[in-house]
Amino acid sequence: MIQKNKLLNFEGTVIYQNDEWFKFSLDSVLLANFVTLRLSDKKIMDLCTGNAPIPMLLSYKTKACIYGIELQKEIFDLGMKSIIDSNMSGRITLINDNIKNVYSKFSSDMFDVVLCNPPYFKVNDNSYLTENKIKCIARHEIEVLLDDVFAASRYLLRNGGTFAMVHRPDRFVEIIDKMRKYGLEPKKVQFVYPKSDLAANMLLIEGVKNGKGGLKVLPPLVVHNNDGSYKDYIKNYFQN
Amino acid sequence: MIQKNKLLNFEGTVIYQNDEWFKFSLDSVLLANFVTLRLSDKKIMDLCTGNAPIPMLLSYKTKACIYGIELQKEIFDLGMKSIIDSNMSGRITLINDNIKNVYSKFSSDMFDVVLCNPPYFKVNDNSYLTENKIKCIARHEIEVLLDDVFAASRYLLRNGGTFAMVHRPDRFVEIIDKMRKYGLEPKKVQFVYPKSDLAANMLLIEGVKNGKGGLKVLPPLVVHNNDGSYKDYIKNYFQN
Repeated sequence: MIQKNKLLNFEGTVIYQNDEWFKFSLDSVLLANFVTLRLSDKKIMDLCTGNAPIPMLLSYKTKACIYGIELQKEIFDLGMKSIIDSNMSGRITLINDNIKNVYSKFSSDMFDVVLCNPPYFKVNDNSYLTENKIKCIARHEIEVLLDDVFAASRYLLRNGGTFAMVHRPDRFVEIIDKMRKYGLEPKKVQFVYPKSDLAANMLLIEGVKNGKGGLKVLPPLVVHNNDGSYKDYIKNYFQN
Repeated sequence: MIQKNKLLNFEGTVIYQNDEWFKFSLDSVLLANFVTLRLSDKKIMDLCTGNAPIPMLLSYKTKACIYGIELQKEIFDLGMKSIIDSNMSGRITLINDNIKNVYSKFSSDMFDVVLCNPPYFKVNDNSYLTENKIKCIARHEIEVLLDDVFAASRYLLRNGGTFAMVHRPDRFVEIIDKMRKYGLEPKKVQFVYPKSDLAANMLLIEGVKNGKGGLKVLPPLVVHNNDGSYKDYIKNYFQN
């Protein structure tokens, strides 16, 4: 069923989601807070935007035009509904398509920033068994592969433009490898640890198109206190 | 001048060092605690061993024969003196040579574990100006490059053997790249943060010769409390 959630603590913002399909989660919130924005940014693209939490969060942090692409019609519709109800349609443009089709929809080298919270998991024999189709496509590399994300980002970004992504640490070596292959030089990375004594379960990475080497590893982002409550700086991400 | 330091809290262990040349530091202690050892390990090699802190620390954790190679005669001599005074010459063998010469000194595929705390810095025009020659060679890639470390490690390690290194995060992308090139697949990495709100200034990385992909990012290693004192788990590294 469709739920209407008040998104974070921003007045007038609603987000529609469907628990059976896809929920926006901490990943998107962290990515929106991680990415480097500039006052001069004119165009921002969010690939695999889901129900558009990243464009909505970014709309409070930038005056740039924000675009989002989502393949799945059901999830795209939720995003559109959220944007209309939040009166953000003047700021955010959603497109219902596969990111493999950006080449015909957009000119190259036009975007200052490209973000992505892609499907995390490689497809295996069990991928289809445990989840419904919509959730499965959102979470597994069925329609969109890492290579597609990097290729589209390279095409869309201007020289010196910023690419930012959230993903899982077990794919880190592959991510580094492929970002460089596509000329998106890794510049900063932040590892997200559920608790201070647990292995990282998420990573935030930013690269610059045709940038120079030299990676900075930002301070650890620990999500929970030992008692399970959110750290104060995580709580602050949910407030205006 | 030569100082005689009691190394950590192990009875009977002394380490000789010279403040003007080279001091063993937290890096070596962290690497010795990070590396995965097995009961079945027979031979361990420490490349760029300096005054041999890593072999001495490992001697408490393994029954394997431990080898160390150090290029600089002055630092090698300190290591030998430490090992003799600590009655460890039956456990540790030091060699005064460049790691580029392991090919003539050792058969291939003989070691279960190879470690390295290499020179961290690329040579630039200022490298020679700020430091004396001995310290300079210990800290800069003058005699030993990353490629030399990986090539020697690949040669020495048996199939499935463990490579472990401490280095700096700004070289991380290059390290990942080259480890894979030399067939030392990265398996676990731990970032070391001076304080919980500061960027990482060290990384510990372990790979397996001809291993499969899949990287684990271990919990953050934060060295100091906010008041500047060492974290308790760091203090424990200095005790038996």
